[in-house]
Amino acid sequence: MKNRHFGDVDGIKEGDVFPDRQALHNAGVHLPTVAGIDGDSITGSSSIVLNAGYVDDLDLGDEIIYTGHGGNKDGKQVEDQSWDGAGNKGLLISELQGLPVRVTRGYKHKSPLSPKSGYQYSGLYQVTDHFEEVGKHGFIICRFRLEKIASTTTSPTIVGGSLPAGTANPGRTQSTVLRIVRDTAVSRETKRLYNYQCQVCGITIEVKGVRYAEGAHIKPLGKPHDGADQPDNLLCLCPNHHVMFDKGVFSINDDFTLHLIGGKLSVHPKHVLDISNLKYHREHICIN
Amino acid sequence: MKNRHFGDVDGIKEGDVFPDRQALHNAGVHLPTVAGIDGDSITGSSSIVLNAGYVDDLDLGDEIIYTGHGGNKDGKQVEDQSWDGAGNKGLLISELQGLPVRVTRGYKHKSPLSPKSGYQYSGLYQVTDHFEEVGKHGFIICRFRLEKIASTTTSPTIVGGSLPAGTANPGRTQSTVLRIVRDTAVSRETKRLYNYQCQVCGITIEVKGVRYAEGAHIKPLGKPHDGADQPDNLLCLCPNHHVMFDKGVFSINDDFTLHLIGGKLSVHPKHVLDISNLKYHREHICIN
Repeated sequence: MKNRHFGDVDGIKEGDVFPDRQALHNAGVHLPTVAGIDGDSITGSSSIVLNAGYVDDLDLGDEIIYTGHGGNKDGKQVEDQSWDGAGNKGLLISELQGLPVRVTRGYKHKSPLSPKSGYQYSGLYQVTDHFEEVGKHGFIICRFRLEKIASTTTSPTIVGGSLPAGTANPGRTQSTVLRIVRDTAVSRETKRLYNYQCQVCGITIEVKGVRYAEGAHIKPLGKPHDGADQPDNLLCLCPNHHVMFDKGVFSINDDFTLHLIGGKLSVHPKHVLDISNLKYHREHICIN
Repeated sequence: MKNRHFGDVDGIKEGDVFPDRQALHNAGVHLPTVAGIDGDSITGSSSIVLNAGYVDDLDLGDEIIYTGHGGNKDGKQVEDQSWDGAGNKGLLISELQGLPVRVTRGYKHKSPLSPKSGYQYSGLYQVTDHFEEVGKHGFIICRFRLEKIASTTTSPTIVGGSLPAGTANPGRTQSTVLRIVRDTAVSRETKRLYNYQCQVCGITIEVKGVRYAEGAHIKPLGKPHDGADQPDNLLCLCPNHHVMFDKGVFSINDDFTLHLIGGKLSVHPKHVLDISNLKYHREHICIN
C-alpha cells in the first residue's frame, strides 16, 4: 500500500504560491506534474489542482464542484468518464472514508480566487458528494462536491497495521458554513406518517421510547441539483438506507421496486411522490 | 395531538425583550408562566427559558448545556430527575425528530447574554445531544446540548394528517460553527482494521466497490465529556449502530457483550479499547 500523505504538508501554509507544477511537486503539495488529481484506487486521492482543464468545473470558493478525470483532450470533453480510473476512484474513497483533499488553484483557472501567476495552495477540502451528469460537451462526467474544512494534521499511515496514536485533547476550530434552510415540518410530518419506520427495510430506531428516522431527499437539495424541500421529494429512511440512497448504492424504479438491492419501497397512500425525482436520482446519483 | 408551534413566532425577532413571564406567554414565545420547558411527551418541546433555576446549566452562547426538568426546589437539586417527564421527554423528541427549540434568557440567568431586566428571546436552537450525570448537588440530572441554528419557519402541524406543502426553492443561510479538529488517520485506520465492517452487526456499505463505515467515539469528544480522539476510544460501526450507540440505545459491557440489544462486539486483536470509556458510556449515555 502506498504511504500517501493526506492533510496539510509541513511548512506549507494556505496562500503559498508556487511558480510551476514542478515546484508544487517538489514541495510535496501535488506530486503529478500534469494530472489534476493526485490519487490512487487503494488509498484515495489527497490533492487536486484547478487549472481550467475541465470546462464543467464550478468554483464557489468554499464549495467546489469538480469534474473527475478522463475523456478530456485539450480542455474539451471528447468521451465519457468512468468511476474506475485512479483519480476518480480515489476521490470516491476520500469521500467515503472522510479523507482531506489539498486544493491548489492555478493561474489559468477562471476564478477571483486564482493567482495572477503560478499555483496557489488553497487549503484542505473534504469531498462531501459525488454524482454524474452530461457535461457541456455532451459526455458523461463524474462530479465531486468539495467543501472547505479547517487545517488538520493527520498521522502518517503506518504500513504494517499499527494504529496511529491520535490525541487525548483534540482542539477546536471555528468555521463558517452555508446551510440550506429547511421547513422542519416537511421532514417531521413525512416521518410521522410512517411512524418512523424505514420505507426500505421497515426498521425503526427507538431511544427511550422515542422513535427516530431520517428524512432523505430524493433529488438532493444542494447545487446543482436544487431539489425541492417538499414531501413529494422526501423519504423516511433508517440511517443505513439513507447513506446508501444518498451515495447511490440503490435507486428506485417508477413502480417503487428497488434497483440493485431488490425489494420494494413502502409508500403510504397519503404520500404522493414526484416520479421525476426518482428518475433524477437514477440518472445522476445511482447510474449503474 | 396538540397543535404545538415550533420555530420562530410571527412578529417576534431575536433580541426582543419582554418585561415578565406573562408577556412572554402573551407573545406566544413560551406559554408556561413558571416552568422552564414548554413541551409535552407527544409532540416535543418547543421552547426553554434559562433563568438560573438550575445550578448545573452551562451557557456558552451558541452552545448551551441545559439541565432537564424535575427534582429541583428553590434552585437546589433535591432528587434525581427522570426522562419520563413531559419537558424532558419533549426535549428528547425534539432532538430525535430535529425540531427547533426557542431559547429565552432571563435577567436572573448568569451570562453576559442575559438581559439586565425581563426576558430576552435568543432565537432558535436545535437539541443535538442528551446525556445524564450526577450534578453539583449529588443527584442525577438529565442534560441536553442545544446548538444555535438560523431562524427557520415551520409549517403548522395539520391535525388530520395532510402533509405540509414545503418549498420548491429552499433558501440558504450562513452560520458559524465550532468544530473539533480530528486526526483523520485515527478513524481511517481503525475502520480499515475492520475492513469497514460494523463491529456490532458485521455489515458493510459498499459504494461502487468502495467500502464505507463510520468511526464512533465511545466517550464523546464534545464538552463536557472531552473524550480522546484515539483508537482506544473509537469503534467502527454502520450508520444505524452509530446512531443507536450515540443516542444510548445500547451500551457495551467490559466483556464486550452488548447491553440491551444482545450479542457481542467484535474486537480485532490489534485494537485495544480503553475499558474506562465503555464505563463512561454506560454511566452517562446509556443509563438503563
